This record gives sequence, structure tokens and C-alpha cells, in this order.
Amino acid sequence: MSTRFRRLALIGIGLIGSSIALAARRQGLVESIAISTRRPETLEEARELGLGDVYTTDPAEAVRGADLVILCTPVGAYEAVMEAIAPALEPGAILSDVGSVKRHVVRTVTPHVPEGVHFVPGHPLAGTEHSGPSAGFPELFVKRWCVLTPEPEVDRKAVQRLVAFWSAMGSQVETMDADHHDMVLAITSHVPHLIAYNIVGTVADLEEDTQSEVIKFSASGFRDFTRIAASDPVMWRDVFLTNRDAVLEMLGRCLEDLSVLQRAVRVGDGPGLEALFTRTRAVRRSIIDAGQDSAAPDFGRPHEQAPAPQEHYVREHGGGDDA
Amino acid sequence: MSTRFRRLALIGIGLIGSSIALAARRQGLVESIAISTRRPETLEEARELGLGDVYTTDPAEAVRGADLVILCTPVGAYEAVMEAIAPALEPGAILSDVGSVKRHVVRTVTPHVPEGVHFVPGHPLAGTEHSGPSAGFPELFVKRWCVLTPEPEVDRKAVQRLVAFWSAMGSQVETMDADHHDMVLAITSHVPHLIAYNIVGTVADLEEDTQSEVIKFSASGFRDFTRIAASDPVMWRDVFLTNRDAVLEMLGRCLEDLSVLQRAVRVGDGPGLEALFTRTRAVRRSIIDAGQDSAAPDFGRPHEQAPAPQEHYVREHGGGDDA
Repeated sequence: MSTRFRRLALIGIGLIGSSIALAARRQGLVESIAISTRRPETLEEARELGLGDVYTTDPAEAVRGADLVILCTPVGAYEAVMEAIAPALEPGAILSDVGSVKRHVVRTVTPHVPEGVHFVPGHPLAGTEHSGPSAGFPELFVKRWCVLTPEPEVDRKAVQRLVAFWSAMGSQVETMDADHHDMVLAITSHVPHLIAYNIVGTVADLEEDTQSEVIKFSASGFRDFTRIAASDPVMWRDVFLTNRDAVLEMLGRCLEDLSVLQRAVRVGDGPGLEALFTRTRAVRRSIIDAGQDSAAPDFGRPHEQAPAPQEHYVREHGGGDDA
Repeated sequence: MSTRFRRLALIGIGLIGSSIALAARRQGLVESIAISTRRPETLEEARELGLGDVYTTDPAEAVRGADLVILCTPVGAYEAVMEAIAPALEPGAILSDVGSVKRHVVRTVTPHVPEGVHFVPGHPLAGTEHSGPSAGFPELFVKRWCVLTPEPEVDRKAVQRLVAFWSAMGSQVETMDADHHDMVLAITSHVPHLIAYNIVGTVADLEEDTQSEVIKFSASGFRDFTRIAASDPVMWRDVFLTNRDAVLEMLGRCLEDLSVLQRAVRVGDGPGLEALFTRTRAVRRSIIDAGQDSAAPDFGRPHEQAPAPQEHYVREHGGGDDA
């Protein structure tokens, strides 16, 4: 089975699209890359970065002759993209995407997929808080999960070729049902992002002088929420518009638990608080055991060197007013 | 003014206490260090690590002859510690602490402080998710804030000496009112920790097979919450027991905002969601501008190298079943 594709068409060229272009090229997975994006400035940026071989603002032109087409636009644009590209898709081509929600994508895309085209939805669990074609880098997918959610009737060989494509870019690939994907991602990703956006929004509403102190002292926990809440706004809007049911279900569970916790704080329930805070450590240990994070201290950021000893602050024999 | 102390007494020798011992020694800030802790095993660990000069389970013995005493136990133990050490504190000594809440500490400690002892509460905004004497390292405070909250009547020279002590260990030192400290920390630190503990707790209650998938795919956001929620349970219990009012006030604001956001998801308010997600980016930028974090991608963790191209996954001329 060959994992090499004749032509890869990327519709949309943000962080994920540009990283696929760089990784697929570096790993020798494609002969040529066609890039299509709606905004001419973005297309020009992709061209200057040398991400592809063909550049066009017309997605139908990009997919002509492509045996692998990957939708990398926000999920909200899929319907319009499919209307534009469906007549130009080659028989036998594999059509995939990188959207963060999957049931909605299956519902939206499937009716447009021509006979003989294999639709295999995908979701690489990789990203940074940066967006745009210049944010991409070829190592983005290394040791990151990529979840594929093909419907049962989809051609198995097409699925295998796409598995091999993502594996060659360094991903660990897992196949599952679209609904199950959406539920697992709601709790691992969507609700954490919603909560992070929310708390950062609360801070943005504080009086100006308090806000500036919050920023100054943000390293004590808040900083990590702001990093999560700095991801692409349009992508995240679409996630919440298209995975509403799973998000509301999981958010509802969190809010129930938060009410219990809020009450424990109000009544001063020390043993209850300590029990919860101890229990959560076990989840953390499982994540380290599963190789999903390191146990390195201080949130992964390196500590600076200590200042040299005996600098001007330190005077052994004083000389000041209380020496 | 000398920043060198004759004897530093550390009551409690966890992450912060052991880091103070290492940093103060390395910077030549103290002639000798007395370490006291309640549990003999912990004391033995500190001795094996060579953190001090004198080791005792009796805090009164540790503070005898000390001109700087720093309480590094959980805040919940301060009352008992003060009852034990008050008669042994030297006139002229500076008494400080490292607790994460300050108004409660002022209320608890002040009645026990003997005439002539200078009580200057402190809070180094530094830490990792690890605890215990072996978790300490001398660079922990470098470029981190240390907030001091002396009451207005406290001796200015004592405050200055403590400022110099923390500066020499690498901290940026700020002085403010205890109530103000507690409000700012409630939103930058305490509520984020409460929310992180909460969502990790929700996951701990999921069915076992879903939970194992959540752990597997945790890199998509949840992982960063578990890191926050892995901090010392007893310390955090005491934070919520002793900064209740500010925590409930700030948590209340967050919950109001979350109700609005939940409704926006339910009714599919795309423009509202996008507006919030855009607004929060500005807060993130302020934090980077303030030097409190770097703009480095992917939550600060390095990416692994990509696999070598043309490995077994990639066969240019096929040979498999669909070549």
C-alpha cells in the first residue's frame, strides 16, 4: 500500500494546514501540494512561505487532480466549500478534514460527497495558541493523537491510507465513532477551553487597576488559563456551535460539581475539600503514566538562573542604617 | 543595612521552605539555618538533603536565637505554631511567613507576636505542583513576585530588611494591604485552582472506559488543568478555608459570566461567542507584554523531532494491495 499521494489539496492554510504541508513534504508523502484559501493576503503569505506548488483562491481548482483533499478551514465554512468543490472531486480521491467536532462534520459533508470519493473525517489533537500560515511547523503532529471517524460503510483501504499518512507525519492514529469522539473531546478540550475563556473574560471586566495587578501576578495560575483562551476565536466559535449537545452535557456535570464545591467553601468543609484535592492527584498521575505529560515542575517552563551571590543587595558587614 | 541574618529559622520544610534554605545559603544571606518540622520522617529527609545546620521537631527550639523566622507550614497550622514559639522568639527578630492568604494570617498570628518582634507577612508567588523537602530548588524565586503585607504600624526597617532578603533570592518584591492581596490572588490563583480541581474531579467521576480515553487525549486542554489541580491538597484546603469571602465573591462573578456563556452555546449565538473569544486575546497579550509568560507555542513544552523521512511507512512505488 502506497502512502504517497500524487497531489494533496489543502483547503484552508492556517496553523494545521501549513503544518500538514510542511510535514507531508518533509516526509516525502506527496508529489505536489495545491493550496486554496479564501483571502488573497493569506494565499500570498502561503506562497511567500513556499508551502505548496499551486496557489488559488478557487477551491474547485485546487481539488482537480488531487487524490487527497483535506479541509483545513473553520468547520463553519465546510458547507460552502463542499458546494464549491463537489463537482471537481476526482473519483477514488480521499476527502478528509481536521475539524475539532466530528458528528456535525459527517452530517454537513456527507450529502455533498460524490459517488466514488472516500470521506474519512479526521481530527489531529495538536495545536498551539497561534494561528495563520506562518504558525505552522512540521513537527506539530509528532507523538500527538490523530482521531479518524469514518462511517462503517467507508472503504477500508482508504481509511488505511489515511492512517498511514498521519502515522508518517508522526501521529498516533486512533479510529472511533464520531459521536464518541465528540463526547470525549467535549470534556478533554471543549469545556476546558470554554471555562478558560470565561475566567479570562471575567478578568477583562474588572476595574482597570485591579486588572493590571491581575496581569502582574498572573503566574500564580491565571496565566495558564490565558494561554488556553488565546486560541483562534473563529475555530472555537464553530466548535461550540457544532458540538453543542456534548458541550452542554459535560458543562452541566461540571456546574453541578462546582455548586457542591462552592458550598464546601462557604460552609468551611475542610475534610471535603482535602478529599477532592487529593483525589484529583490520581488523575494527574494517570496522565503522566500515559505519557501525555512530563512530571517536570513549574508548568513546563524553565527557571532562570539565580543571580550571582554576594551582589549589591548583600553586604556582609552592613554599612546601612541598621547595621 | 545588612541583609545577612545570624540565624534563619524555617518552621515547616516543604517545597517553599526547602527552596528558601537552598537560595538563602547560596546567596550567602544567612550564617546558619535551623529547621523544624512536625514529622520526624520529613525532618530526616531535610537532614539527608543537608538543608540546614540544626534540625528539631520542636519549633520553639528552632526559633531560639533566630533573627529571622519564616513560617512555611500550611496556614492551618499557624495558630498552634505561634502558641509554641511565641515565648521563645527573640526581641528584634523578624517574623514572616509564606502563606497564600494574608488577612487571615494577620488575624491569626498578630495576637501572639511578642512586643519587639516585627511581624511582616509574606507570600512568594512561586511554586510547582510538587511538594516536600526534596521538591525545593534555589532558583524557585528568581524573577517571581514576592508580596509583603505588613500592617501600617510595623517597623519600616524590618520591612526593608525582608525586602532585601527576598530581592537577593531573585524575587521582585511588592508591598500591599493584606485585603487587597487576598482579592487579587482570589482571581489570579485561588479561583483558577478551584475550577481546575473541579473539572478534574468531574472527570474522576466518569465511567472507567471514558475516563481512560480522557486521559489518553488529555493533551487537548484538560492536561493543563490536571497540572494545576495536582498541587498540595492541604495547602489548598487551607487557602479556601481562610480566603473564603474573596474566593466566593470572585467565583460568583465567574459563575454569572458562565451562565451567559452557557446560554450563548445553547442558543447558538455565534457573534457573541466570537466576540468573547476575541476579547480574551487582549488579556493574553498584556500578560506577554508584562513579561509574565513567553509567546512560545504549545503551552511551553518542546516538540519532539519529526521521524526520519522515507521510513517503512512510506514506500514510493507501493508494493501493497492498492499500489
